[in-house]
Amino acid sequence: MKQFNNVTVLLEGNSYFDGAVTSRTVMFEDGSRKTLGFMLPGEYEFGTDAAELMEIVSGELDVKLPGADEWQTIKSAESFNVPANSKFQVSVKVVTDYCCSYL
Amino acid sequence: MKQFNNVTVLLEGNSYFDGAVTSRTVMFEDGSRKTLGFMLPGEYEFGTDAAELMEIVSGELDVKLPGADEWQTIKSAESFNVPANSKFQVSVKVVTDYCCSYL
Repeated sequence: MKQFNNVTVLLEGNSYFDGAVTSRTVMFEDGSRKTLGFMLPGEYEFGTDAAELMEIVSGELDVKLPGADEWQTIKSAESFNVPANSKFQVSVKVVTDYCCSYL
Repeated sequence: MKQFNNVTVLLEGNSYFDGAVTSRTVMFEDGSRKTLGFMLPGEYEFGTDAAELMEIVSGELDVKLPGADEWQTIKSAESFNVPANSKFQVSVKVVTDYCCSYL
């Protein structure tokens, strides 16, 4: 199984939408940061500060990217990019495990 | 904020009870292991292999330990121990962030 070595993990996790979206923060030696999280079924809107790469580890969701007219389905092992300072919507059908990299 | 340095984190998380309980696995240089997780409101029964130290990072739950007749309330910054090869029940009232150490 893929793993991240020599990283720092914060004890305290992050919880949004009454715990329907939760994540833990992982910091790397090069100063970069990822969050590893779960989304439960539901519809959510997120805002970005930095640009993000969202990788779906398991599960599936539909995403409506900034400026897009249509939703696209993102499955396990697929990913999508979100620009900085933008908003995007996701519709989650099944418990979804994700890895978000801040670019 | 407290953090764990020089650790390994598995990309893939753990999900139980339809995602109402999720966690991520953190491995330490000394070979020890913790899981950092969230429990959403609900009632759950868990089984242990190794003995466990459960620390509540934020939130609150009631626990019924193996052999106990009564429930006890565990609040943020409090903890409880569970013996190896046993079962325990928790009743979670609010989104609860925990750190489980395997002893």
